[in-house]
Amino acid sequence: MTDVAIVGVGTTKYGKHLDKSGTDLAQMAVREALNDARNITIRDIEGFVLSSQNPEILQKQGNSVNHYSEFLGIGAKYAARVEGACVSGTMGLRTGYLAVKSGMVDTCLVVGVEKCYELPSGSDIMAAFAYVIDRDWEAAFGSNAPMGFAMFATRHMQVYGTTEEQLATISVKNRNFASKNPKAHLQKPITVEDVLNSKPVCKPLKLLDCCPVSDGASAVILARGDIARDYTDTPVYIRGIGQFLVPENVISSLSDLTEFTALKMASQEAYRQAGITADDVDVAETHDCFTIAELLEIEAMGFCEKGEGGRFVEEGQTDLGGKVAVNTGGGLLSRGHPIGATGICQASIITEQLRGDAPKGRQVDGAEIGLSQNLGGWGTSQAVVIYSR
Amino acid sequence: MTDVAIVGVGTTKYGKHLDKSGTDLAQMAVREALNDARNITIRDIEGFVLSSQNPEILQKQGNSVNHYSEFLGIGAKYAARVEGACVSGTMGLRTGYLAVKSGMVDTCLVVGVEKCYELPSGSDIMAAFAYVIDRDWEAAFGSNAPMGFAMFATRHMQVYGTTEEQLATISVKNRNFASKNPKAHLQKPITVEDVLNSKPVCKPLKLLDCCPVSDGASAVILARGDIARDYTDTPVYIRGIGQFLVPENVISSLSDLTEFTALKMASQEAYRQAGITADDVDVAETHDCFTIAELLEIEAMGFCEKGEGGRFVEEGQTDLGGKVAVNTGGGLLSRGHPIGATGICQASIITEQLRGDAPKGRQVDGAEIGLSQNLGGWGTSQAVVIYSR
Repeated sequence: MTDVAIVGVGTTKYGKHLDKSGTDLAQMAVREALNDARNITIRDIEGFVLSSQNPEILQKQGNSVNHYSEFLGIGAKYAARVEGACVSGTMGLRTGYLAVKSGMVDTCLVVGVEKCYELPSGSDIMAAFAYVIDRDWEAAFGSNAPMGFAMFATRHMQVYGTTEEQLATISVKNRNFASKNPKAHLQKPITVEDVLNSKPVCKPLKLLDCCPVSDGASAVILARGDIARDYTDTPVYIRGIGQFLVPENVISSLSDLTEFTALKMASQEAYRQAGITADDVDVAETHDCFTIAELLEIEAMGFCEKGEGGRFVEEGQTDLGGKVAVNTGGGLLSRGHPIGATGICQASIITEQLRGDAPKGRQVDGAEIGLSQNLGGWGTSQAVVIYSR
Repeated sequence: MTDVAIVGVGTTKYGKHLDKSGTDLAQMAVREALNDARNITIRDIEGFVLSSQNPEILQKQGNSVNHYSEFLGIGAKYAARVEGACVSGTMGLRTGYLAVKSGMVDTCLVVGVEKCYELPSGSDIMAAFAYVIDRDWEAAFGSNAPMGFAMFATRHMQVYGTTEEQLATISVKNRNFASKNPKAHLQKPITVEDVLNSKPVCKPLKLLDCCPVSDGASAVILARGDIARDYTDTPVYIRGIGQFLVPENVISSLSDLTEFTALKMASQEAYRQAGITADDVDVAETHDCFTIAELLEIEAMGFCEKGEGGRFVEEGQTDLGGKVAVNTGGGLLSRGHPIGATGICQASIITEQLRGDAPKGRQVDGAEIGLSQNLGGWGTSQAVVIYSR
């Protein structure tokens, strides 16, 4: 069966784009991806997957794959809009990957986009995001994302002695990377004290433990491995994709708030397909919607032992020069998190790393194996992608 | 590459289910599909695709694939929620097919569900449906589905002399089939006069030229061809799936209102993959959201010449004993159209036909090749599936 390669990537700056629509942002990202590749125009692309979490609520717009097809000028012999809350991006990437892998199409454009600042007030945006939570059994009682992740953090602190300072270290590291990424939403460096002194959101999480609300779009062009070099000198191959969705969607169903069980399964599957272990990963983009999430992720994926995440981060093992560089694009915490776009942006950042094209202060020297990890729900829907040149 | 077979199908009655949630309906359809197959429980299934058009607006519920996974008890190593307006069902079926075809999973559950009668008033339901139309360029001016399809009908009448009576014949035929389908939404037989005298909706379409708003769920279980007989004695194989999405989403972009251009391309691709022609099709379920749609579809797929649809229908060529039996389940017009479920239900009806299990008055004698066709937007997003034993 054919390999699948990434032959072009593009992304907008993430942030507050009050003067642009979702289709404007998607056009910008797609144009950049087409320019990043060669010998390819929008008319040459056979498949089209759109990852967008909530255009219905945020833009009052359904049938978005057809809507975006008009603005992008793409006719497609495979097309789908894919949604899985915050994992929408990688769910879409995997769906595009399957379309190429199965031989159905030779090339596939995967676009992730979210225009969150469409509604007039911050509270409406939060209400829109709460739609991802079970309406009857959880959202009805005021549940929201910071609350749930705060419960994970509290439990991890209690069981393993993880500290607020250790969590803050994650945010500081990711902001430092973002300060060297002109496309990141938040670029001003911060200190551990800044994080600790930032506004409380839901104990023990403070504002700087939480990712911002962002607008943005990212795009990748996938091609059959055997034709990838027609479109680029530096194809980056997808070596494995593991995904796992557990039959739990409300936080009270989870048996253990100190780990992401689904991620253990998804990462093991991805490693198996790629024929690697966690130790082989040089650079990883993970889903740090909250600082605690990155910590749970490095543990679940086996970068360190369970319960050791706090110390591992504190030692700089997830920074440049450490065991594995994590979130060199700035992560959701600083790059931003336009929901449907995040998983696609992660793929573009890993592609840049494996090409050796990241700027000084972000590039991992000699990076050979990259990983991206994206989650939905309470970490109950997980996807992990392994890449190499 | 492996074949993909349908090994189990299930569907709820379509209609107004005020006492049931979307998850209730999905559970009913999935239980029936699991019972229809053998040696398989929900825990054995590896992939899960959910087709649902608008749970965000209708149920205020996002992340629906994770939401439904909890109620269905399914853990999945490939999972996606797929949305493409009215073509969501077949878009999901094709996505599940790719997951099996690519070797990523051995089995995949594809569930289509829509709970349209969740909102309190009829006008809200219509507003929710209008979300599929471009907000800025079309819906803002009051566009809706009957209006657009009425334009197709008017143009076809003008150019080819198609009559309101011919269109009515389609509705009468489909209601006759529905009268023998206990799961259909509308089962009481009607006459051409009933259609012609029904309430005007948008000239020339009357109420009985339009499908009802329905709740319902349908499910199919897909399996690798080489293991299909572990789960059933009567696997039905998917021989080809063609899809086409054109880069047009507003009706004013279309160059020709007398045909579904994207459907010509999608059906030719499906025939090519299956190695058949239109003449080989014995039984077809098509997307008759309005009577005119079925007429445009039989023309675009080559069951008759362009412009000849009215006469072809009038001659009974799409009824039992005709050239190709169309919508033996009652079609959207009478079986109903719970948006995300429709494409999945079509697959279940064709499966029943190819097994020879449809009741008298609906079964096509010796049916060997089946087809289902599903559309989104203004026929701008099309999917065609070919099946055989």
